[in-house]
Amino acid sequence: MSLTIKLTITPHIINLNLHPKHRAKIPAYSLGFRPKPIYHSNALIPILYNNKQPRMSQASVSGSVIKSSLIEPDGGVVVDVIVPESERGSKTLEAESLPKVRLARIDVEWVHVISEGWASPLKGFMRENEYLQSLHFNSLRMGNGTVVNMSLPIVLAIDDETKENIGSSKDVGLVGPDGDLLAILRSIEIYKHNKEERIARTWGTTAPGLPYVEEFITPAGNWLIGGDLEVLKPIKYNDGLDHYRLSPQQLRKEFDRRQADAVFAFQLRNPVHNGHALLMNDTRRRLLEMGYKNPILLLHPLGGFTKADDVPLDVRMEQHSKVLEDGVLDPETTIVAIFPSPMHYAGPTEVQWHAKARINAGANFYIVGRDPAGMGHPTEKRDLYDPDHGKKVLSMAPGLEKLNILPFRVAAYDTVAKQMAFFDPSRSKDFLFISGTKMRTYARTGENPPDGFMCPGGWEVLVKHYERLQAEEATPAAVSA
Amino acid sequence: MSLTIKLTITPHIINLNLHPKHRAKIPAYSLGFRPKPIYHSNALIPILYNNKQPRMSQASVSGSVIKSSLIEPDGGVVVDVIVPESERGSKTLEAESLPKVRLARIDVEWVHVISEGWASPLKGFMRENEYLQSLHFNSLRMGNGTVVNMSLPIVLAIDDETKENIGSSKDVGLVGPDGDLLAILRSIEIYKHNKEERIARTWGTTAPGLPYVEEFITPAGNWLIGGDLEVLKPIKYNDGLDHYRLSPQQLRKEFDRRQADAVFAFQLRNPVHNGHALLMNDTRRRLLEMGYKNPILLLHPLGGFTKADDVPLDVRMEQHSKVLEDGVLDPETTIVAIFPSPMHYAGPTEVQWHAKARINAGANFYIVGRDPAGMGHPTEKRDLYDPDHGKKVLSMAPGLEKLNILPFRVAAYDTVAKQMAFFDPSRSKDFLFISGTKMRTYARTGENPPDGFMCPGGWEVLVKHYERLQAEEATPAAVSA
Repeated sequence: MSLTIKLTITPHIINLNLHPKHRAKIPAYSLGFRPKPIYHSNALIPILYNNKQPRMSQASVSGSVIKSSLIEPDGGVVVDVIVPESERGSKTLEAESLPKVRLARIDVEWVHVISEGWASPLKGFMRENEYLQSLHFNSLRMGNGTVVNMSLPIVLAIDDETKENIGSSKDVGLVGPDGDLLAILRSIEIYKHNKEERIARTWGTTAPGLPYVEEFITPAGNWLIGGDLEVLKPIKYNDGLDHYRLSPQQLRKEFDRRQADAVFAFQLRNPVHNGHALLMNDTRRRLLEMGYKNPILLLHPLGGFTKADDVPLDVRMEQHSKVLEDGVLDPETTIVAIFPSPMHYAGPTEVQWHAKARINAGANFYIVGRDPAGMGHPTEKRDLYDPDHGKKVLSMAPGLEKLNILPFRVAAYDTVAKQMAFFDPSRSKDFLFISGTKMRTYARTGENPPDGFMCPGGWEVLVKHYERLQAEEATPAAVSA
Repeated sequence: MSLTIKLTITPHIINLNLHPKHRAKIPAYSLGFRPKPIYHSNALIPILYNNKQPRMSQASVSGSVIKSSLIEPDGGVVVDVIVPESERGSKTLEAESLPKVRLARIDVEWVHVISEGWASPLKGFMRENEYLQSLHFNSLRMGNGTVVNMSLPIVLAIDDETKENIGSSKDVGLVGPDGDLLAILRSIEIYKHNKEERIARTWGTTAPGLPYVEEFITPAGNWLIGGDLEVLKPIKYNDGLDHYRLSPQQLRKEFDRRQADAVFAFQLRNPVHNGHALLMNDTRRRLLEMGYKNPILLLHPLGGFTKADDVPLDVRMEQHSKVLEDGVLDPETTIVAIFPSPMHYAGPTEVQWHAKARINAGANFYIVGRDPAGMGHPTEKRDLYDPDHGKKVLSMAPGLEKLNILPFRVAAYDTVAKQMAFFDPSRSKDFLFISGTKMRTYARTGENPPDGFMCPGGWEVLVKHYERLQAEEATPAAVSA
C-alpha cells in the first residue's frame, strides 16, 4: 500500500483543472525561487502554533491576492451546524424536553463529521431521498440541478422501541453513549433500514465479516432517522489528539494563511513509510514543476473507526510525528490533521467519500493509490475489490469533476538501491513488496524491515506498540492458564 | 400490480416537462375538439397496416409542423448498428475469419436491444469504464459532460477457454445458440466478471433464487468482453410475433405519422386487467385536459426473458389483443409493441432502464406504479424492494430529468361498484386487491375473478393457457405414476 506518483496528464483518467493563474505557466518550468529544503527537524506543533501569527500581511505586501479557497466546497458553503455559544443554553433546555435517541460510538463520529461540514451540503443524517440517491447514484442532485458526490449513506439507525417513543414528535434529542446530550435532530423522517440492501449496494457483497457491518449495521435497529442536525457543542474525544482534529473551516484558513496555491491531500490509515514519503515529496516536486509556487501537503490520517488489526490512531499519530521529526516530510509544507470519519472498507464506493470530504476541507488535488479503502475478501482468498477500480471509479465519479485526481504507480523496496523506489517492471526481481500486513508482521515479531523502508524513529513507535500489545495479550492468557 | 394515475404535479416527485406549446394552455382546460370515443372494436393490426398510408399531408394542410420526435434520444441519435444490406456479405466473410464467441439466448436478446438503439448511446456490450459507471452511478458521463441514464450493466460474459481462443485479436465474431453468425464485436476489451459484486450492486441482495442471476450469471464465464457491435442482420425470433417488435426508430416514425403530441409508455409483463386500462385511459384523459391534443399510448409489454411463473409472451400478446378487440383500450390512440429486453427483476435499478429505453423509443411520459420490476424476496417472506422505492428512485435518477414521470396510486376491485376503481382509503373494506399471483391462481384453478376485473375475451385467453399448461404437466405425471 504505497507508491509513486504518476502525474502524466491522461485526460480520461486525470482531470487536471489547474489553478487558472498557473495554466499559462505550465510550459515554462523555471521557478522564481528555489523551494525550501524538504527535510526539517520540526514536528507537527508549528501548524497550530503558527495560527497565532497570521502571515496575511505578507500577502498584501507582495501584492498577490490569496484566494480564500482553492476549491469550492460542495453546495457552495462549508456546513457548520454547531450551535453558537449564545444559544447553547436554550437549545440544551429544548433538547432535554424532546424524545431521545441514544447514539452508538459510531453515530457520534458521524455527528462530528456532519457538524463540521465534511459531508457538505449534508446538514444532518440522511432522509430517505438522500439515502436512496446515495445508495443508487453515489451522488445528490441539488435544488439548482448541480450534482455533488455522496457515495456512503450517512444514516442513523434506531430500533422499534425508540421509534415508538418518538411517536409523532418533529424533533428529537441525540444522547451520546455516556448519556450527555449532544444534538437536536430537526424535522425528522423515519424510514425502513433495509440492512441487506444497504450492505449489498455499499460494499458490493453481503459476505459475513465486513468490519463496519458486523460492528455497526447488523446489531443496529430496523429504522433510519433522518433530519437536520443542531450540535450543542463541538465534538471532542479528550484523548490528547483533539488538537489534530482540524475542521474543514480551520484547514481552509490554514491553507490561506500559508498562502497555498495548491493543496494535495493524502488519505491514510497506516503508518507512513518511505514509499509514502517518496510519493508525497515527488508530488510536491511535480506541482512545483507545473508552476505552483507553494503546494501544501495535507497528510490526513483517518481518525474514526478502523478494524481491529489496523494500527490504532494514537500510535499512528506518534509515528507520523516521528516521520516529520526525522525529516522525511517537511513540516513547513505539510499539515498533519485527523480526518474524523470512520472507515467502511468499502473500496471504490468509499474512496469517493474520502475525496469528496477533502474537497470540503479545501484540497484541490487528491492522491489515490492501489486498492484504496480496500481489504481482503472476508470469506474468499482474494482482494474484495479489483485494486484498480478505486482510481477508475474516482476518476469517473459524479460531483468530483472539479477535483484533480492524482493516481500513482506502486512503490516498492528496491533491494539494489536499498531504498523505497518507484517500481520498475523491467527489473521486477530487484523489488520487494511490503504490504501493510507484512509491515505489521515485521513489527509484531520484532524483525527489522529492510534498511530504508521506514525512518528509524517511526519504526520504533510501531515496535513498541506491538510489544505493549503482546504484553497485554500475554497477561489474560497467563491468568487463565 | 395496477392502479390509478395520480397526475397531481408535485415537483419533488413528478418532473413535468411539458411540451412547450402546451405550457400556456394548462390553466385553460377547454379543448377545441372532443376526443374520439375511447372504446373501439379493432385490434392491433391497424398500427402496422396504417403505416402504408402516412398522414403527413394532413400536417402540412393544417399548417402545424409535427416535430420528428417529442424527446431527444440519449446521446442525440438513436443508435443503429445493423450492417447495411450492401455490406452484409463482406462483413459476414470477415466475421467468419475472426475468433468466435458463442452467445447464450440472453446474449442474443441484448444484441437485439443494443442493435436497435434501445440502450443509446451504448453501441455495444459495455467496456469496463461503462460497466463501472453503470454499476456505481447508474449513469454514463458522455464526452461532452452530459449524463445519460444506464442502470443495468449490459455485458457479455465469456469463459476462460473463449478468452484464450481470442488471444490478442482486436475483434471477434458473435455466434448465436444455433451456430449462425450474428455480429462482429470490434475493439474489444476483456475484463474480470466479478459476479458477486455485479449481483450485489444491481439487485441489492446476493440471496440465492434471483431468476436472472440463477439462469444467466451464475453459470456464465469469469470474464466480460466489451466492444462495439456490428450486427449482420436484424435479430428475428420467427415466433409469429416479430411484427410486434418495432424498433425505437419505427416507433418514433409511427408517433410522428399519428401526429402524437405526447406519448405515454406503459411497461408491463402481465396480462392487462381493467385496473391497468382505467389507469391508461385516465392518463390519456388528463393529458387531454392538460392541453395535449393527441396523446398516444405505447402499450409496451416486455418480450425478453421472464421468470418461469410469469405468463409467456405469446399468451400475453393474445390477451392484449383481446383487450383491444373488446374495446377496453382504443386502437386509434394505442400502439402495442414488444420491448425486446429481458427482465432482471431488479426493482428500482431496473425501472430506470425501462424508462430510459422508452426515451429512446420516443416516449416523453412514463407511467410507474407500485413496486416496478419487483418480486418477492427469494429467501425471505417480504417484497424484495420497498414498493415505493421504484418511483422515488425513478424521479431522482440521473439522465431521466427530461422524461415526465407519472406515478400512480393503487387501483383495486371495488366490490360495491363491481369494477376496478381508484382505491379509496376511506372505505378500504370495499376494495379487493388482486395481485398478479392471485390473478394467476384464479386462472389456474378455473375460478372466475370478480365481474369487471378483466374483459371476458382477455380472461379466456388466460384460462386456456393454464388449461394447456395443466394438461402438459399432467402428462409426464401420468407416465411416471
